[in-house]
Amino acid sequence: MRYAVLGTGVVGRTLATRLVFLGHEVSIGTRDPEATLARTEPDGYGNPSYAVWQDSQPAVTLATFADAAAGAEVVVNATSGGASLAALAEAGEDNLAGKLLVDIANPLDFSRGMPPTLDPVNTDSLAEQIQRAFPAAKVVKTLNTMNAAVMVEPSRVAGEHTVFVSGDDAQAKEQATALLVEMGWPRTSVIDLGDITSARGTEMLLPIWLRLWGALGHADYNFHIQGA
Amino acid sequence: MRYAVLGTGVVGRTLATRLVFLGHEVSIGTRDPEATLARTEPDGYGNPSYAVWQDSQPAVTLATFADAAAGAEVVVNATSGGASLAALAEAGEDNLAGKLLVDIANPLDFSRGMPPTLDPVNTDSLAEQIQRAFPAAKVVKTLNTMNAAVMVEPSRVAGEHTVFVSGDDAQAKEQATALLVEMGWPRTSVIDLGDITSARGTEMLLPIWLRLWGALGHADYNFHIQGA
Repeated sequence: MRYAVLGTGVVGRTLATRLVFLGHEVSIGTRDPEATLARTEPDGYGNPSYAVWQDSQPAVTLATFADAAAGAEVVVNATSGGASLAALAEAGEDNLAGKLLVDIANPLDFSRGMPPTLDPVNTDSLAEQIQRAFPAAKVVKTLNTMNAAVMVEPSRVAGEHTVFVSGDDAQAKEQATALLVEMGWPRTSVIDLGDITSARGTEMLLPIWLRLWGALGHADYNFHIQGA
Repeated sequence: MRYAVLGTGVVGRTLATRLVFLGHEVSIGTRDPEATLARTEPDGYGNPSYAVWQDSQPAVTLATFADAAAGAEVVVNATSGGASLAALAEAGEDNLAGKLLVDIANPLDFSRGMPPTLDPVNTDSLAEQIQRAFPAAKVVKTLNTMNAAVMVEPSRVAGEHTVFVSGDDAQAKEQATALLVEMGWPRTSVIDLGDITSARGTEMLLPIWLRLWGALGHADYNFHIQGA
């Protein structure tokens, strides 16, 4: 399968690495590929620059958002939430139409300091904003409730734990679920919450996720719905 | 121990029944005891009137918010979230001062139809509002992330699952944890998220809790933090 992963950060890189390992073709989308490759400094968290990471993943290609999306059968939104709508607009409505668009971003607003707040929240969600902006795309919200390392390797967390899917298109949710299974998620760990408005609930898990990160001191945990 | 349970709904009744079973003295607080006892119709969900329930629990006394709180060593806020601040004001600042105030309410706003929205949300929480309004009370937010039946009988849900505590006073959190253990929660199931601002995270679990209720068709489930 040909995947476009939009976003050059740790989440996008982690997904891309896993998809390549699983035998897929992966193009990472960014606003300006030359500018992305020109940066050589590690990011604020000490992660290597994109160019350094790219050297370790020669199978991954880097392209503009539009070129990445145009060539893909499935598009994954791994941009930061506040930038997702702009990134998807650059990807282009036509390049998203009819395709599964896996939205794993969270609309965290860091502009007012820590902890970040969610915007939108409560009466709307990023997933709904994306579905409204790109009505011909088949948006499925999933994987946004855990650390990137856990997304692609659920066995990092011992025991059963849950991944949620939300979306308006049943077939697209089935396709997203098949991808989750391919990445190592037992099918019984996938909970279909319903239509795209249920993404409000999963995005609103972020505040407690962040507090748990502080309380536990590591990120290898996940929500499990016991009794489901 | 002498407990005041503020609120005559199913949550308050469930807590009161369990506390009596555990050997505690329980007074339920309401705005107007005569009016509460005068209602004879079942509520909108088919639950019997308070008076009918009271007949089955003769050990429980009914009192005004103020009288219930005045006589108690521990106060439990089981009022509906939108009414909690007014109920606690009637209970009286002096009657709450220095006491553990267990806040199990969620600020759900049903006024705009279903699904309810949270108010406050994101940058504030009901628990923080209560702590600010009653600075001498020792507010601990807990138990608000599950159905009332599960609160008092965690074994209804098979396997390990989690109850969170949030609060500014370490000793009060320890006292609340002891109550949880008494109700059947393994101490290892209790996660201390931190100060009272972490209640934002647990209150924001409500939207996904409500969607899960719809998706699963029953309420005997709970969040478990796997890998904690």
